[in-house]
Amino acid sequence: MTPTAPNKTAIVLIDCPDRKGIVAVVSDFLLRHNANILHADQHQDADLGLFLTRIEWDLSGFDLDAKGFAGKFAPIARRFEMHWRLEFSEVRPRMAIFVSHYDHCLADLLYRRESGELHCEIPLVISNHSDAQRLAEFHRVPFHHIPTGSVSKQNVERKQVALLREHSIGLVVLARYMQILSPQFVRRYPQRIINVHHSFLPAFSGARPYHRAFERGVKLIGATSHYVTEKLDEGPIIEQDVVRISHRDQLQDLIQKGRDIEKAVLSRAVRWHIEHRILVYAKKTVVFD
Amino acid sequence: MTPTAPNKTAIVLIDCPDRKGIVAVVSDFLLRHNANILHADQHQDADLGLFLTRIEWDLSGFDLDAKGFAGKFAPIARRFEMHWRLEFSEVRPRMAIFVSHYDHCLADLLYRRESGELHCEIPLVISNHSDAQRLAEFHRVPFHHIPTGSVSKQNVERKQVALLREHSIGLVVLARYMQILSPQFVRRYPQRIINVHHSFLPAFSGARPYHRAFERGVKLIGATSHYVTEKLDEGPIIEQDVVRISHRDQLQDLIQKGRDIEKAVLSRAVRWHIEHRILVYAKKTVVFD
Amino acid sequence: MTPTAPNKTAIVLIDCPDRKGIVAVVSDFLLRHNANILHADQHQDADLGLFLTRIEWDLSGFDLDAKGFAGKFAPIARRFEMHWRLEFSEVRPRMAIFVSHYDHCLADLLYRRESGELHCEIPLVISNHSDAQRLAEFHRVPFHHIPTGSVSKQNVERKQVALLREHSIGLVVLARYMQILSPQFVRRYPQRIINVHHSFLPAFSGARPYHRAFERGVKLIGATSHYVTEKLDEGPIIEQDVVRISHRDQLQDLIQKGRDIEKAVLSRAVRWHIEHRILVYAKKTVVFD
Amino acid sequence: MTPTAPNKTAIVLIDCPDRKGIVAVVSDFLLRHNANILHADQHQDADLGLFLTRIEWDLSGFDLDAKGFAGKFAPIARRFEMHWRLEFSEVRPRMAIFVSHYDHCLADLLYRRESGELHCEIPLVISNHSDAQRLAEFHRVPFHHIPTGSVSKQNVERKQVALLREHSIGLVVLARYMQILSPQFVRRYPQRIINVHHSFLPAFSGARPYHRAFERGVKLIGATSHYVTEKLDEGPIIEQDVVRISHRDQLQDLIQKGRDIEKAVLSRAVRWHIEHRILVYAKKTVVFD
Repeated sequence: MTPTAPNKTAIVLIDCPDRKGIVAVVSDFLLRHNANILHADQHQDADLGLFLTRIEWDLSGFDLDAKGFAGKFAPIARRFEMHWRLEFSEVRPRMAIFVSHYDHCLADLLYRRESGELHCEIPLVISNHSDAQRLAEFHRVPFHHIPTGSVSKQNVERKQVALLREHSIGLVVLARYMQILSPQFVRRYPQRIINVHHSFLPAFSGARPYHRAFERGVKLIGATSHYVTEKLDEGPIIEQDVVRISHRDQLQDLIQKGRDIEKAVLSRAVRWHIEHRILVYAKKTVVFD
Repeated sequence: MTPTAPNKTAIVLIDCPDRKGIVAVVSDFLLRHNANILHADQHQDADLGLFLTRIEWDLSGFDLDAKGFAGKFAPIARRFEMHWRLEFSEVRPRMAIFVSHYDHCLADLLYRRESGELHCEIPLVISNHSDAQRLAEFHRVPFHHIPTGSVSKQNVERKQVALLREHSIGLVVLARYMQILSPQFVRRYPQRIINVHHSFLPAFSGARPYHRAFERGVKLIGATSHYVTEKLDEGPIIEQDVVRISHRDQLQDLIQKGRDIEKAVLSRAVRWHIEHRILVYAKKTVVFD
Repeated sequence: MTPTAPNKTAIVLIDCPDRKGIVAVVSDFLLRHNANILHADQHQDADLGLFLTRIEWDLSGFDLDAKGFAGKFAPIARRFEMHWRLEFSEVRPRMAIFVSHYDHCLADLLYRRESGELHCEIPLVISNHSDAQRLAEFHRVPFHHIPTGSVSKQNVERKQVALLREHSIGLVVLARYMQILSPQFVRRYPQRIINVHHSFLPAFSGARPYHRAFERGVKLIGATSHYVTEKLDEGPIIEQDVVRISHRDQLQDLIQKGRDIEKAVLSRAVRWHIEHRILVYAKKTVVFD
Repeated sequence: MTPTAPNKTAIVLIDCPDRKGIVAVVSDFLLRHNANILHADQHQDADLGLFLTRIEWDLSGFDLDAKGFAGKFAPIARRFEMHWRLEFSEVRPRMAIFVSHYDHCLADLLYRRESGELHCEIPLVISNHSDAQRLAEFHRVPFHHIPTGSVSKQNVERKQVALLREHSIGLVVLARYMQILSPQFVRRYPQRIINVHHSFLPAFSGARPYHRAFERGVKLIGATSHYVTEKLDEGPIIEQDVVRISHRDQLQDLIQKGRDIEKAVLSRAVRWHIEHRILVYAKKTVVFD
């Protein structure tokens, strides 16, 4: 199945103090450079006095390249104290997947990439076990086995980071990777590490969430995808979902039903990230649809 | 419970052929008249080459009234061949509710108005039965009993329309009103009559949808709110929802579980309508959130 | 709307150590007394070695009354070390509703009783405020205002308990009652007080759950109905549900969207309780459907 | 991941006219042969006067084999005019998967088999295209390419049936197989062919359901798994699910979002079938959980 090639587009993501005239000035700027706006979405946080926007336009006819944009847009950005970044749809984000024993999220992500749903490159899979090697290779993704047992976390992460750099990785996806990353690692990839936690956070953060959900007798179980920060399971939440369970469901049933929502929330988060739909502020995410 | 008074705002809804510069020109216009934009959302239909937008701004500081806006905005509207309308949040839409025997949607709407969730006036309830009188009066809404049995539809509708006119009604909500309105009636209120149908349209359009869902053995039942057009159950869909059923559910259970989704889809449709969030085109709705 | 009168039925709820032959012996007993079984459901907890069942039968032709059943069933109950109780569908449970300012759950329960969905008596509503009086009286339910401000909890509860006794109340429903009941009160009504908490427990137990959900940036908000025990928000969960929110939803939107799931989870819990569908064990509930 | 081996169990599925004493007699029979019942569920259809049950017991200690059961159970079955069948959990159903171009359901089923969620054998995949060959072989399932273009349906089905027989296939799963099976084929496998249709049946039965859903402007799209009968898309429904869409979703988005619910409803149907949880009557299914 070959999806139709999407148009080449540019996307600008902006956040700044909320003031009158931002939309008018930015849209006038884009018009003067002959942009054909395809999508525009904005959000104001009244409490924090913050304005956030995502604008996507067709590049055909647009008369600026990345460098030209930066130069011409600079005065506007200064005037409104903007944080901004420019992205291009034809630049496919480069993503590494970390995995341990459970490979359902890995299999799901690799399939979605292959079916054209995820527009990204996956130059490597890294695992502390070798189980997933055959799966990665079926999808023609190089597999790197970096065991964690007898070596220091520092050594392990040194190897991992070397690989990520070598392959110019911009996004690290923890697809049920059961090791905790060091603060040093996390700091290298701010808002660029996505994890899936197998509970409805903040409920059951930490270890063995399905066991604890089972013991507590909840009637729904959940999964959460979030950006990784130095505080375990406390990063900005990107997506959550739940599935109904009943007294008939044993622990094994929770684990199995949970797999489907883990796949769902992780793949949506990855998709939104690589489509440049997510802005983080105040420890929360805005997901522009 | 008194909800905090919302700011006084204006809302403009626009649809027009999609061309470059619409956003820039409109936002520049609003800026020049000192509008503080609170929400802006837009939608393009690539196939039809259509641009639709909803913009809401704070009126404090805005230097045009309705008449002034119309005059100043006219050149822009002409240039871009716009359909547009301007609404003010402090003008509370005036809504009539039609009901027959089943009063759960009526009770739900009256409660939501009273709790401040629906910002509208409800000057009257019209019914072909007298069952709902006590409920309407509890909520201090005048109740009009217009029987349908022995008189012609024409006569009935003449009385109804007279009441609607007398009370300057802008929206008619059919809250399980079990009579079919004549084309003449429908034409008087284009996109201003909202009905709830107790199925997941287009499945089970027409009569006795729960009975037919039960016979077919579906695993979910649904409800649909839509604008009424001359073709029964074929108007633009505003909202739909479903609820899971199983073989344990008998027909009575379907009817009862259905009530909750009927209330949900109807009240959301009414809310979106009175908040001026809905644009209709190509027999579909855009609901700006 | 008058629902068709259901058959007169009896329901037995049993829990006991799991052993072979329980079903055979109980169903043989019922057959010998000419019971026509309408529903039978069972659950085994393999870890705890526990057997739980709910059996409902048509009383027409059944040759035992409550006293006769107790006498004849006693040997079986002793042999299998059963806890059991017998209920009759024509005995309508007597339920008191406690409420504070927010009256949406109260309105919902009163409506569902009146529409025939909840087969119970509601002899009284108790509130620490007077807001709900008009609503209760519209539904012809006596309203008792017992203020909590200047008097001791002990005094307040003494009055409440006196009323509950006077009216032979078997179930207390806390429909957003914002006072914490004393352990003494709770102990009087084991597994007979149902509360609704406005979060997806165990997330956001305690005060101001919507505020904390908003701050944390969750993507779904929830509500939980549970039996009240001496530990706040830790009683056996009966039902939970969630609704999706987005960054567009402000705190007020969370509170409003939450109302609908609060109504849903509380009314389902009440219904299951009064239909004798719930068994509690190991701090969890089994809900027989 | 190796799931723990489940106990060896037997399952009996019974339907018969509803009469007093069925449960007592069957459970007494099982007790006398030393069965330890693990699950028992039943359903009565009051309108049709029908009793249906599924009972599962641990085989350790049970003193009958299949032949012995048939002999001893015959008098009971005759007395109550039962249809019944006996299944053993250690006999893994043998399932063939038919697929065309879209391979997402195939990939999902193969993964779920491999992860231990589906306890079945998949001795072959049959396709009218060769696209899925690599995927099937990765999962070590023989792939048979039987083109449909230039040959008669009769010839194609002759080859298919020969393969099904050769491999003793008991269940045929149409995983987005885009050919219509002949009535002759369907009659060979009554209630043993499961199809997934990419709409919420009965809405959008027939061709191009996503296109028609898009044109109609529905707010939810669905998928349905059902047993195949001679009437297209009218067989007994096993499972349905929906996903929310909005005006932002284009046709391609519907197709992509639909894939996830197609996988969900098909895999659940397959699972319930191979766990012997489904009984068909009156063109509906009972799914015992």
